[in-house]
Order: sequence, then C-alpha cells, then structure tokens
Amino acid sequence: MRHLLLITALLFSFSLTAKEHPCLLLTPKGVKEIKTSLGKLPYFDQSYQTIKDEADKAMGVKMDIPTPVDGGGGYTHEQHKRNYISMFNAGAVYQVSGDAKYAKYVRDMLMEYAKVYSTWGEHPAKKNNPSGKIFWQTLNDFVWLVHVSHAYDCAYNGISAADRKEIEDKLFRPMVEFIMYGNDGANERTFNMIQNHGTWATAAVGMIGYVMDDKDLTDKALLGTKKDGQAGFLRQVDEMFSPDGYYAEGPYYLRYAIWPFTLFAQVIDNNQPEQKIFQRRDGILLKAVDAEMQMMYNGEVLYLNDALKKTILTQELVWAVDIAYAANQKNTNLLNIAGRQERVMICDAGITTAKALKNHKMQPFESVSHLFRDGANGDQGAVSILRYGKEPKQTALVMKATTHGGSHGHYDKLSFSFYDNGNTILQDYGAVRFLNIEPKYGGHYTKENNSWGKQSISHNTLTVDETSHFNAVTKTADQFWSEQLLYDVTPDVQVTAAKDMNAYPNVQMQRTMALVTHASAEQPFVIDIFRAKSEQAHTYDFPFYYMGHMVSVDFEYTPFTTEQRALGNSNGYQHLWLEAQGTTTKPTACFTLVNADRFYSITTLANDKSEFMFTRLGAGDPNFMLRHDAGFMLRQKEASNHTFVTVVEPHGDYNLNNEYTLGYASNIDQLKLEVDNDTYSAVTVKMKNGNTYLLLVCNNNTDKNAAHSLDVNGKKYDWTGAYKLIVTTPQIP
Amino acid sequence: MRHLLLITALLFSFSLTAKEHPCLLLTPKGVKEIKTSLGKLPYFDQSYQTIKDEADKAMGVKMDIPTPVDGGGGYTHEQHKRNYISMFNAGAVYQVSGDAKYAKYVRDMLMEYAKVYSTWGEHPAKKNNPSGKIFWQTLNDFVWLVHVSHAYDCAYNGISAADRKEIEDKLFRPMVEFIMYGNDGANERTFNMIQNHGTWATAAVGMIGYVMDDKDLTDKALLGTKKDGQAGFLRQVDEMFSPDGYYAEGPYYLRYAIWPFTLFAQVIDNNQPEQKIFQRRDGILLKAVDAEMQMMYNGEVLYLNDALKKTILTQELVWAVDIAYAANQKNTNLLNIAGRQERVMICDAGITTAKALKNHKMQPFESVSHLFRDGANGDQGAVSILRYGKEPKQTALVMKATTHGGSHGHYDKLSFSFYDNGNTILQDYGAVRFLNIEPKYGGHYTKENNSWGKQSISHNTLTVDETSHFNAVTKTADQFWSEQLLYDVTPDVQVTAAKDMNAYPNVQMQRTMALVTHASAEQPFVIDIFRAKSEQAHTYDFPFYYMGHMVSVDFEYTPFTTEQRALGNSNGYQHLWLEAQGTTTKPTACFTLVNADRFYSITTLANDKSEFMFTRLGAGDPNFMLRHDAGFMLRQKEASNHTFVTVVEPHGDYNLNNEYTLGYASNIDQLKLEVDNDTYSAVTVKMKNGNTYLLLVCNNNTDKNAAHSLDVNGKKYDWTGAYKLIVTTPQIP
Repeated sequence: MRHLLLITALLFSFSLTAKEHPCLLLTPKGVKEIKTSLGKLPYFDQSYQTIKDEADKAMGVKMDIPTPVDGGGGYTHEQHKRNYISMFNAGAVYQVSGDAKYAKYVRDMLMEYAKVYSTWGEHPAKKNNPSGKIFWQTLNDFVWLVHVSHAYDCAYNGISAADRKEIEDKLFRPMVEFIMYGNDGANERTFNMIQNHGTWATAAVGMIGYVMDDKDLTDKALLGTKKDGQAGFLRQVDEMFSPDGYYAEGPYYLRYAIWPFTLFAQVIDNNQPEQKIFQRRDGILLKAVDAEMQMMYNGEVLYLNDALKKTILTQELVWAVDIAYAANQKNTNLLNIAGRQERVMICDAGITTAKALKNHKMQPFESVSHLFRDGANGDQGAVSILRYGKEPKQTALVMKATTHGGSHGHYDKLSFSFYDNGNTILQDYGAVRFLNIEPKYGGHYTKENNSWGKQSISHNTLTVDETSHFNAVTKTADQFWSEQLLYDVTPDVQVTAAKDMNAYPNVQMQRTMALVTHASAEQPFVIDIFRAKSEQAHTYDFPFYYMGHMVSVDFEYTPFTTEQRALGNSNGYQHLWLEAQGTTTKPTACFTLVNADRFYSITTLANDKSEFMFTRLGAGDPNFMLRHDAGFMLRQKEASNHTFVTVVEPHGDYNLNNEYTLGYASNIDQLKLEVDNDTYSAVTVKMKNGNTYLLLVCNNNTDKNAAHSLDVNGKKYDWTGAYKLIVTTPQIP
Repeated sequence: MRHLLLITALLFSFSLTAKEHPCLLLTPKGVKEIKTSLGKLPYFDQSYQTIKDEADKAMGVKMDIPTPVDGGGGYTHEQHKRNYISMFNAGAVYQVSGDAKYAKYVRDMLMEYAKVYSTWGEHPAKKNNPSGKIFWQTLNDFVWLVHVSHAYDCAYNGISAADRKEIEDKLFRPMVEFIMYGNDGANERTFNMIQNHGTWATAAVGMIGYVMDDKDLTDKALLGTKKDGQAGFLRQVDEMFSPDGYYAEGPYYLRYAIWPFTLFAQVIDNNQPEQKIFQRRDGILLKAVDAEMQMMYNGEVLYLNDALKKTILTQELVWAVDIAYAANQKNTNLLNIAGRQERVMICDAGITTAKALKNHKMQPFESVSHLFRDGANGDQGAVSILRYGKEPKQTALVMKATTHGGSHGHYDKLSFSFYDNGNTILQDYGAVRFLNIEPKYGGHYTKENNSWGKQSISHNTLTVDETSHFNAVTKTADQFWSEQLLYDVTPDVQVTAAKDMNAYPNVQMQRTMALVTHASAEQPFVIDIFRAKSEQAHTYDFPFYYMGHMVSVDFEYTPFTTEQRALGNSNGYQHLWLEAQGTTTKPTACFTLVNADRFYSITTLANDKSEFMFTRLGAGDPNFMLRHDAGFMLRQKEASNHTFVTVVEPHGDYNLNNEYTLGYASNIDQLKLEVDNDTYSAVTVKMKNGNTYLLLVCNNNTDKNAAHSLDVNGKKYDWTGAYKLIVTTPQIP
C-alpha cells in the first residue's frame, strides 16, 4: 500500500517545462553561490583548484579511448577510469569558470565514445561477474556512467543540440539499455537487486535519466525495471540498512555503499523534492552516514569483517559528509568531520558545507556510545560500541554480534576490539588484502584472507577445538545471527551482552562486557565474562591480539628461541608461530604490555587446565601477505562448561618527554568469579588500593524492571534490571 | 695562553655589590617581563599553569624526605626526584606570583634536608658508579643540586637570613664539598672530567656558587678544582663537541648533554656576561643545539648508537631551544621548533621565546643537508646527512662514519639509514632498552642491547664472516674512527663517501652514497657503492632493515612456513629468524616494499655467489625485548674483493583515499657496475623510461680540483673533482 501511493505520486510529479541544467549535483543556484564565494572559502578554493589542475592536466595529453582489453589495474581499465574522472572534473570546472574549452573537452570525449561504444562486445577480461562493455565487470560501467552523467549534465548547455542527440543516441541510450537489459537478462537481475551493485546501476540510469529528462528511465531507477517498487533505489533504501543505519557487510563496505546512495539521493532531491528522499524511513540515509561516522575510531573505519585501512579522508566519505550536512544543517557534528577532511566536493552540497565551515568552531568529532542493530528490522544482532572520553584519546570497546555479512563476513561471533588513548590496543585484523597492488595477488582478497582473516582464531573471541564458527562455511553462517541481549550506558558503567547458539553446534556462547567508567577507577577498564556451555569436553582457545610491546607476565613460560613451529595446520592456526607457552599455579594470569605512553594489563582467570601461549602471526605465509602481529592466548583444555573472566585495564603513565614512569604494574589485586550459573554471574575485581568492583549479571533475563536477589559470599544483593555494578572504596580511617 | 687570559679575566670580574636574586635562569628583569606578559602569551601561560598546578599538587601532600635506600626507580629515589622538581616549580611560581607560600615551601623542604643531609652516608644501593648521598650514583645528586639551586635562588628573598645560613651551612656547603671532594677523591676526578657527568657536577657547583655569591665555587666550576683551566666547564665546552657541534656518543646523548651545558651557560651569561660564553669557540654551544635539531627526522632524534625514541618535545630540548633562541634571536628557525614544542620554560629565555613566538609565522623547521664532523678537531670521521625537500615529507639519507662513541657506541661503521615521505624506510634499530620500565631489565640497557643492538649485523652495513666490527670490543673500537672522504651537495646530486680500515683487520671498506635529486628522476633515489677489499675469501652479509610490507621480489625463494630457525648463534645472528632464502640467475635482484602511500625498491647487483635472505628479528629473545622487524639481506659467499652496488628508490603513489595505485614496480631497467678498481668506480642506472644516470667516482683522490678521465664502455669521460653524475634523458623524436 505504501509502495502504491509512492508510485502514484511519482508518476504524476514531473514538470512539463524544459529541464534546466545542471540538475544533478550542481544546480544553477549552487553555481551562482559558488561563483560569488570563490576566493573566500579556503577549503572550497583549494578543492576547486585541485580538480581544475587535474582537468587541465588531463586536457594537456592526447585523448585516448582504447578498445577495452584489460582487467582491473590494466591499461585500458585505468584509462577509462581516467577518462570519466577527467570529464567529471572538466564538467564541474566548466560550470564554475564558464570557460567553453572544458565543455568542449567533455563533448569531444563523449563524441569519441559515441563513435565506438556500439562496436564493443563482451569484455575479453570478463571474470566471474557479468561482463561490462567498457570494463571487465558491469559494476565499473555503472560507476563510469554515474560520473559521466554528472559531466554531461555540467557540459550540457555547452554542447550543441545536434551533438547531444548524437551522444545520447549512440552512447547513453545503448548504455542504459545494456545496463538494464544486457547480458541476456543478467543485467536486469543486477539492476533489480537489493544490493550494492544494484544501487550503482539504478543511480547510473537514474542520473542520466534526469539529465535527458527521461521519465521512463528515472521511474525504473526508483522503482525497478517493472516500475512496481519491488526493486529499484527506493526499495534499496528501505531494505539495505538496519533501522540504525547499519549495513550487514560492516562499516568498511557501508563506506563504499553510501557513495551511490548519497549521490543519487541528492540527485533525486534536486529533481523530485516531493520524494523527500532524505526523510524517507525516518531519515535512514542520513542515519547511515552518521552510523558510518560513528563506527570509527579517530577517523579510521572499524575493522569489522573484510576491512582495510580507510579514513574519513576517502573521497566517498567527503561526498557523504557534504551531502548529509547539506540535507540536515542542524547536524553540526558533521562539520567537525568536514573540517578534518579539508576538502569539499564541487557541488551544491560542497559549497553549503564550505560556507558553514567558515564560521564553525572546530571541535573533536563527538563519537558516542551506540548500539547498531543489524537486520532490516533491527532484530538480527548488533554491533555495540562503548565509549568514554573524547577523541583523540577516547577509550572504546567494540563488540560484534551480528549477521554474518555474506561473502565479506568473518567467522567472529562475539568478538571484540579495544581502543584507548588514540591507539588500537586489542585489534581486529581486518582483511588480508593489498587493494590495488597488483603483485599482491592482483590486488584482490588474498588466499590468506580466507585462511586467516576470516577464521575465528584471528579474532578476539572463542575458538572451539581449533575449528572456526560454522566450520567457516558462508552459506551456513548466513542463515544465523547472534542475539543482542543487553545494552546500557550509564555514567558509571556501560554494559553490552550477546549470545550465540549457532556458531558451534554443541557449544553455546554468551558474552557480557562492561566498561567500568566509575570515577574511582584510575582509567576506565573492561570486565569481560564469556560463558561457554557444552556437554562435551573441548579445547577452548581464547586469544587477545594486542598492539604494543609485552612488558611482563606473572607466570612462568618456556620460550622457543632457536627454532619455532606453526601452532597448527588449518583453520588459521597454520599462520601462528608459537613463540612461548606457560602455565600458572595462581588463580589468575596477568599479561602486561605498553603502547605509546600507557600500560595495559590483561588479567584472566586461570586453573590447572589453562595454558598460555605467545603467538606471532606470519607462519604459513609463503608470499608475505600477513603482518607479524602478536597475540596472547589462553587455551583452556578439557573444558565443557567454562566461563572466561578477564579484565582489560589501561594503567600508568609512560612519559618519555619528562622521563618518568608511573604505574607499570596492573592495579588488580584479585579477580574472582564469585557466582556463575545459568541465571547469574558475579565477578569481583579488587584493586590494590582497596577499591572493589562487584559486577552482578543476570544471564537469562534482560528485563529492565525485573527484580533480582543474589547471595555473594554470604552477603545478599538486591537490584533491578539485567545487571548491577557495586563499587566499594575503602573508608579513610 | 688562551686559558691564562681567560683566567685573569675571570678572577677580576666579580662585582662587589650585594648579589640580586634571582640570578640564575630567572632575573629581576625577566620576572618583570613575565608579570607584564602574563595572560597574553598562550604557550607561556599554559606552561606556567602546568608548573603551578604541579607545585600546588606537591604542596598538597605531606612533605617526605626519606632516608636514601632505593636504587633507580625505587621509592626513595623517585621521592627525592619529586622533591627537587616540586621545589623547582615552587621557586619559579614564587617569583611569578609573589605568593609567599611557595617560598615557604622551598624553605621548609630545604630546612628538612639540612637537618638530615649530614647523617647520610654511602648510598646502600650503590652500583658501579660512585655513590651519591641522596641517590645511588653521584650523577643524580648533581642533577638534584642543579634544580635545587634554581629553586633556592628563586625563593632566596623569601627566606630569612638565619634560615639561609642554616640551609647553606648544613646542606649546600657539605653537598658541594662532597660533590667536589667526596668518595675519597673519586668525586674530584668526576668533577674534573671532560665528560657528561663532569658537566652536571660543574653546573651544580657553579649554580649554587652564584646563588651564594661564592667566587671560589664558581671559579672551580668554570676552571676545575685546581682553577687552572685544565678542567671545569670551560674546558668541557672547548673539547666535548666537534667544531660542528657533534657529540661522540651521538644525537641521543647530545640531547641529554646539552641540558646542563645550555642551563649553566645561561647562568654564566647572566652572572659573568664578560665570559661571552655563547660566543666561545665560535659559538659552539649554539652550534651544538643546532646540530641536535638537525640530527632529527621530523622532530625525532636519529637512532645513531644507543638511542631510544626522543623528540623535540622532551623537556631538555625545550630548555635548549629557549636558551639558544634567546642567546641568538636571529635564529628564527628555532622558533619553528619552539612552536611545535608548545611549551616554554619559566625563565628569562622562556619569556623571550614566547614573546617572539607570538609574532612568528610558523614554518616547517628547515632541516638541511649537513656534514657533522666528529672529534674535537673535526678530523675523526663524520655523520653525513643528505636531505631533499621539506619536512614533513622530506627525503633523508644518513651515513655514519665516526668514532666509536664509548660505551654507548655501536659497531656500525659506514652504516646508513633512509627516511622518506615522513617515514623511516631503512632503519637503524637504535638501543634495546625500555627506559624506566622496571620489569624490562630494570629499565637498564638490556642484554639484547649488547647481543643485538650494538652488533654490526643489526645495522645497514657490511658484516664479515658473521663477526662484528672490532670483534665487538669497545676498547678496541674506541681507538679508531672511519675517515670521511667526500661530502658535496649540489642541486642535482648529493654525495658522501667514507672508508674504514680498522673495523676488520683483513677487510677494508669504502662506501660512496649519492642521493640523486636531478629533476628527471621520479623521486630522489640513492646510489650506494660499497667496496670491500680483502685478500682472503669471506662471507659478506649486507642487510637492509626495512619498515613497511614486502610487495614483490624478482627472484625465486624458498619460504620456511611451518618451522623456522635462528640464522646463527652469536654476534646478533641468534636474534634473526630466517623466513625465506633465494638466489637469482639475473644480474640484479630487486626487493619492493610499500610504506604508507609510496613504494620503495632496493635493487642490488647479484651473481651466482649471491644469496638473498628474508629475516625477522625476535629469535633468541626469551624476555621479549626485541621488536619483530623485517630485513632483506644479501649474503655474498666466498667473496674477497667485492663491490656491492645498490639503488634505493622511492616510487609510485599508493592512494587509498581516491583508490588508485601508480608505479608499484621499480623504475629501474638496468643497474651496472661498469668500472670498478682502486682508482675509479662507475655505475649506470638505466630507468625504464630511458633516463640514464652514470655515476663516476674516484676512489682514491677527493681533491676538488683534480682532473679525471675515464673510459666507460668505449666512451671517454673527463671531469674535475671526486665524482661526476652524468644524466642522459632520451631525445623526444
């Protein structure tokens, strides 16, 4: 019903007057604003100068529209990329400068493309994905058309009607025909997919549709080739994000997906404002931009699932920030990002952002504690982020209990990572890939991404019997998700809890993590309760991949100093060198490291079945694809029902400028699991200064209003809600 | 004769009027300036607030002057450190605020020290060095008195004459007596040493001497206990630096040494301006400060000899920069450093610097190519630095061919390191030490500093037969130095050359390094010609310790993927894991890596006796003292006379923000050693674009005016001077 109304609105909404140009990302109003602001807004001026320089440079060399031959990274591939970027830049410069030579450049190149496009057949370097005409896969053709639509729109008024007809007839119309219906129907399936590639396809067709004022094309872009709303951009908006703006593949791919979403949304808003696209689904697109910004640590995207180093400085996030800010100018927090990006896009949203930046007092970006639910309805697990303090020194704990995320998903149920003082302390490795570096497996995901990056053992979570979650089978993993049980943020403590019943057929896992921020603590610290339940005995591996240098441990170990071996031969274990191993007779084991000017201790419960391993990544890596990162791992042998209790604790001050060191040793005097059953867990952390933190957790009822009562060491505690932190500080006598 | 004149001038220079206070680092004039500037100079205000906060915090806790018991890092050690810092801060705050409570705090604490000082005997934690009274070694006592002299000077007018007499009689006079004559003459030897400890001792005695207006003490401080100028601060100034301001232990220790030098020089200048201490020896102290600033890469001290991470932000360099700038205000380049330090010292020099900063337009610090000769006369080798471009993206090549540097020296003759694009690319490991981290071998230099850090194999230079230079015997190494042969900087190429005849009894080494900055090169690149001469066959190991990730090599290798062994069992080899090894049938081998957004290739000549090894640090390290850094090593077997020729070449652009990659492969088409004998070497580097760089070097005559003629491949080249670079670019047809 909702769809039907929208369709009706859509079909009657087109204006009958002649289309003004530009009309996509730049409009006559925006161009006017840019012209009057030029020379007054440093970021805008600089950004404009950059694209102008690039356009001038491109126009200084001989035009080259090669017959498509090469795959990604090869010559013809890169040349067609250069071509669309050059036209894209030249188009914008034409609008701002009014200099006809830039329009002519776009026109000339498009006329050349128009001459040859129809002569190109299936791409010879076609791989698994459907073949494009210009590139080896259709995705790149979509991206080409998104950029070129903008270029054509900008140059439109500088190209004669006859030339435009030639270009549209010989290039754009055959191209949209191919994009929507080519490859024997495969392209239509892609176009109508509720997926990333579909978004690029609909954006491409929609954008050239608006430029050519072709309602049939824009309707198909918005509603699918059948125009019934079962496919198309609007449905993608409705289904591809969780209600919190989360994207199942994780923030690394959200960053990429958000590009066509924000671009095309802006285009729709300029051409069909009545769509209220930015308000759609409670403003989901703007939420997604915010979600992306929040799923970072100090401007770097969190390494969840397949992820490489990406920051707020990437071009797609410059687009996203400019457009999202322009769409909701109350969101001044985005200006803090825009200021750090130090560039804007040459479009209406870019000039709006640049103007706002001029009078904006830069603040650190406010990244806050947030629960990002997964699934279109928000009921398929979540990523929880607990934060304390402000960037760049903020403390952040990230726990992942989501859906799998398809081919980019990792087998990392209930894994976590920890950041503090501006640094990654306990890492998620991310993906094993050297994007765009041809000698590193063609720049693709490496084999080691499967054999290490995705495996459970590469994450800070539980691996059972040296086997990954779901046996590392995507098809299985995609059918399940973890259940987010609890998420609560208070001034003294922030708590998240989730469980997973499916990753291992015979082992149930539940993890409760608390970031204790109570004023009595030297620094915020983490209490981690990980419950594994099983009826059989297993080997439980529980690693911590740390960044920094080992300082000390409180147990004996045997180092392997002249010869070392890989820890295993499959499921990721073949990539770990075993550097040392030890045991303890104490009830806890403590591992301390230093990173920058702070110390960190991992204190964990131990018994006579606990073994401690020092691992180093890099075994089984003939092509040197892996970083040689270090790990501290607790191996619990012959375990069935076992609860791991760990405190991760920043402490001390390692001051190299004034040469002093404070607090290099853990503050913890005692860590105890006082109660542990299916209903309750109770953990005591006693510090050396006498402060005691008792965390009471209800394991099977997260009702905020439920009343609980528990006896701990002969003392009775009553509370309401799923958990309670009780802090006791010694009385000064 | 020079000394005699100075002594005469000194003996008659004291004024007869009553001494004004403060007179050391603050003066009444400076205090007045500070008071009128307060609230107007952000860096000064902030710096003052910091010490005021620290003073207030210290004054809020119970005074504690414990009987000395503990060694470095222990409680009484740290408490006496805290005490002098608290007095130091309180003294300055008294002068600026005029609040009597700060003077009283200094007075009270000094009265407490006066009560107990004479009761303290030899320090129970005494180690190898002479025992202090307050600390385990006298050095710390000197540092204590330097700080406390300043505190006392500042508080002087706020303490009654009777109390002052008590403090001077019971504390300061016994202390200077001990510093000059204690420990059965050992302290007098230290005091009169031309060495770092002597500088702290003379500064301490001199400073308290000026405060107490005691000419005998200040004369002894300046001229030695015999007042004959054979010892004392002035002679230290005359002999402890090379004419270029170099300090034999290297820039890491220069940073520390410069602290008492600049402090005490400032004190002398305030009290005996006729000494013209800052002009002495052609302004050597200011040169030393400049030298320190120049021996950095992006504000981080070069890792020559024993060295840890130290930056311009250390307190000692804040002192040095403030004082050096105030002493020569034409040196505005220092203001670029001061601005980056973001703090100043609360003294006359600090307010001068802060005022200058207010109107200073910050520029990147200009670090320039520079030769730093070693030895008091500048004739004992050198460190040469070749730089191109500006910080922070500057390219820098550092070659070390100096004296050994005593107990902090490394066996690293003719070693080099390379920096580019803001990053360390080929590193010098520096020292293996976790300063002030007690669990890491008490914070001392670790055993691994001897077994790895100092060894030849840990450096980018030649190791013969798996044995370090001078067999790693300091006593031997200290007798010799390398000879700097050539240093020349031109717009197109910068060249340095040195030889070493002593590191190995039977192998002579000569290295010529050229940084080619000719406009035709994509990026500046390094040509390295390392000639080893011997009459016997040896195994030559020639490593490159790189930072970054391996991208590709152009030869076959065998990786050790399931098991790996240490490369050797002594001289540093026991610390290297052998990860892979290979050979080549080509005339060169190329190793490419990526670091940040740039690629780097190491292309080196090869033959059938060349073996290539991939090493990883971390073997033989039971206590986890080492970083796990990577190396690429050329092992040349059965070699006697052998010339290593290598090009280190930055190239390409790895752009993650806009997702494109350019030039991931080396530009080098051919590398050839065309001529190589005792008189001449000629190397051709031919790039894939046809550019050819022919480097002609005369190996045995560095006369700038000598005429040379050489036949290379049938073509005759005539030139003047020790080298010639001939660049040929292909004609455009």
